[in-house]
Amino acid sequence: VPIYRQIYESIAGAIRSGALCDSFRLPPTRELAGQLGLNRTTISAAYQLLEEDGLLHGEVGRGTFVRYHRPARKPMETISFSTSRPAQEEFPLSDFGLSCQEVLSSHSAGDILQLGSPLGYPPLREYLLEQARKDGSAGPDDDVLVTSGCQQAIDLIQRVLVRDGVPVLMEDPVYHGLKTVFLRGGCSVVGVPVGEAGLDVDLLPAIARQSAAKFLIVTPNFQNPTGTTLPLAARQSIVETAEIAGLSVVENDIYSSLRYFGEPLPTLRSLSRQSSALLLGSFSKVAFPGLRVGWIIANRKTIARLAESRQWWDLHTDQLSQAVLYRFAESGRLATHLSKVRRLGMERVAAAAKACERYLPSGSSFTQPEGGMNLWVRLPGALNTAELRTQAEKEGVSYLAGDYFAVSHSTANCLRLSFGSLTPDEITDGISRLGRLFRQEVDRLQHQNNFELSPGLV
Amino acid sequence: VPIYRQIYESIAGAIRSGALCDSFRLPPTRELAGQLGLNRTTISAAYQLLEEDGLLHGEVGRGTFVRYHRPARKPMETISFSTSRPAQEEFPLSDFGLSCQEVLSSHSAGDILQLGSPLGYPPLREYLLEQARKDGSAGPDDDVLVTSGCQQAIDLIQRVLVRDGVPVLMEDPVYHGLKTVFLRGGCSVVGVPVGEAGLDVDLLPAIARQSAAKFLIVTPNFQNPTGTTLPLAARQSIVETAEIAGLSVVENDIYSSLRYFGEPLPTLRSLSRQSSALLLGSFSKVAFPGLRVGWIIANRKTIARLAESRQWWDLHTDQLSQAVLYRFAESGRLATHLSKVRRLGMERVAAAAKACERYLPSGSSFTQPEGGMNLWVRLPGALNTAELRTQAEKEGVSYLAGDYFAVSHSTANCLRLSFGSLTPDEITDGISRLGRLFRQEVDRLQHQNNFELSPGLV
Repeated sequence: VPIYRQIYESIAGAIRSGALCDSFRLPPTRELAGQLGLNRTTISAAYQLLEEDGLLHGEVGRGTFVRYHRPARKPMETISFSTSRPAQEEFPLSDFGLSCQEVLSSHSAGDILQLGSPLGYPPLREYLLEQARKDGSAGPDDDVLVTSGCQQAIDLIQRVLVRDGVPVLMEDPVYHGLKTVFLRGGCSVVGVPVGEAGLDVDLLPAIARQSAAKFLIVTPNFQNPTGTTLPLAARQSIVETAEIAGLSVVENDIYSSLRYFGEPLPTLRSLSRQSSALLLGSFSKVAFPGLRVGWIIANRKTIARLAESRQWWDLHTDQLSQAVLYRFAESGRLATHLSKVRRLGMERVAAAAKACERYLPSGSSFTQPEGGMNLWVRLPGALNTAELRTQAEKEGVSYLAGDYFAVSHSTANCLRLSFGSLTPDEITDGISRLGRLFRQEVDRLQHQNNFELSPGLV
Repeated sequence: VPIYRQIYESIAGAIRSGALCDSFRLPPTRELAGQLGLNRTTISAAYQLLEEDGLLHGEVGRGTFVRYHRPARKPMETISFSTSRPAQEEFPLSDFGLSCQEVLSSHSAGDILQLGSPLGYPPLREYLLEQARKDGSAGPDDDVLVTSGCQQAIDLIQRVLVRDGVPVLMEDPVYHGLKTVFLRGGCSVVGVPVGEAGLDVDLLPAIARQSAAKFLIVTPNFQNPTGTTLPLAARQSIVETAEIAGLSVVENDIYSSLRYFGEPLPTLRSLSRQSSALLLGSFSKVAFPGLRVGWIIANRKTIARLAESRQWWDLHTDQLSQAVLYRFAESGRLATHLSKVRRLGMERVAAAAKACERYLPSGSSFTQPEGGMNLWVRLPGALNTAELRTQAEKEGVSYLAGDYFAVSHSTANCLRLSFGSLTPDEITDGISRLGRLFRQEVDRLQHQNNFELSPGLV
């Protein structure tokens, strides 16, 4: 970086961070050049850039002054990158209403509104099993349990299968709700680092060995929070490691239908003949998360065990929602909605990637999700995203800080951007605001450093 | 009991139990009178009753013969007294469909189908709190948590509030799903006997003291399985005992709106200023139990604690069902349905009581529920209702045996009759079949005994 540019960035940072306040008089170029032992043209070039940015203005006969007003806060709606949920405005309400009406006018309406089975609404179960059989995720000895959303599936697995407090392996960073269920259940959780291509399969065997874990929970598609996807070879590698290490694989596959780019990849469960593998699914990431319907596919014996327990805990999953979602799916309306959601998702990811490229401070990196609704940003190391949240919210943007998702490794300079319920314009606007804030922070930190190094700079 | 009647019952029992088979020739009256050292007219009177019952017939010149054919089993639908659920045929489907349609065409449809609050759907919460405030069950410092049915409410209370495995007091007999949740949660459960008027409040103080329990779970109205109701004085007594013994009272009030006779009584929570009391409610016993919506009313702090935990376990209760049930209630449709359900419930209880009076073996007793959907039968002591279930099912009747509900005291000669989903005719028919079976069993046991006492009787 040329010297005039370094000086420019250093002063700009000092101005934006408030270290140099509005109307502060800067030393003349000649004076500052003398202090720094530099050529006067170097200082002039820096001042010129600052003037182009509108941060300095010269007054004839008086000198050069800082001109900086913290942008007046317009009343604005917060752009929330905080929650990984589908866009409410895109819910296909009329198709949903139609599905509901068809269910309630059918001859089985009474049965649906009566108490049901702990295993779930039979037609929905058959539909889900059939889907899973088609892609090889379920075999003849497998069964399905409908849960009250995927969150309950995770809790059930913890309570019934992992009670003993054995160590559980999971991606690091990972969805906070997953980590918390196991921690609250008295388990120890061990993180397996996630890289650009999902869970690091090269580290997995050693971590499995050292931890003596019996379970691995993994999200192969568009992982939350990173948005990364495991390539085929990594999936095969996980299956092999699991077999060697005796790990039961819990495959959290709630995002897989939201693929915007690239070809679908096989589930871990379809690659493996491991009988102890569990596959979790949900409708909630496609639409209507207010309806709590998820499912677990596993071998018959495990499903029976889980169902036996869950009946004592909440009898069964709400049957109206099961029946309406089943009707919504088997009528083809889900497929129609999915193709719309995928098109919009593609636009969202593109907008997010473009805005990250453009606005994030240099030295940042971010993931390039092929689907889902989350993107992971890594800022220059010194930035602390948890501390910056308050300022971001003042700028009308919210996100979740990286450490919220950390398991065994700190990710204090990272953040999750959930774009699933935002328009491309909102995504661009939000990331530009965040980018400005993060760049200011980089400047401020750099200025602090420079200031310490050369206190007489300005 | 006159002697001729004892002989009649003894022979009738022997015939019905199969000990005396069809076409067996009975000794002439004179011969039997001689063997037993009785007057011949006594034997004649007994034979005459048996002939009137169609169990004996005389053939001129040949003697007196047993005539008994086990009634041919007609193909019949099983009359199930097994499950405490509302009658599906009476679900107000069109009112429900209308409520659903109104919810989905309202401007808040999108919000309802989006992720919601762990505490529940705000309008439903406000409605439930308002109801509870009206009858004094909730005060200004109280709050409500909507759960996925009352079963989840019980599980949440166990997991969050009673984790330490402290002893929990409950009615004995008690709803099996309540006992099981606490046992599976590692708590010890201590039964407080239930009499004709609910939990025995005279025994409660000593049991509370001896067990050092911290929780008491009680169903003041139409308790499951006994159908009994706590009188006002007993409620007051429980509140006092709880205060003295430091017991938190969990009041399971899911049946209270199903009162068919008598005046409503105040909830324990309205009688007490005890801040640790919890009140559980549900729509499921009135209609649509396939929708999993229940609630807990407690002080704000406890509700916050429960909600904080439940969000990790299943996020929140299904919001479509919450919104539709709220619409169903606040539109007045629930009240319309309730008045119908109460009228039909009255007919059911009347039919059940009449049939019990008429068909149960002498020495039986049964409760007289003022509401709800369960009635408790105590048969003569030697009968084992668990063993008789298979035979009952062959006769096309099912029920749950008393010991299924036992906590600390055996109730092997008892059974629960759940009549909520049966017509009065089915109730009468079912109890008459059960009565015949139980009378046969009394006879069989009596016959065995008589046979031992006087082997030469017949």
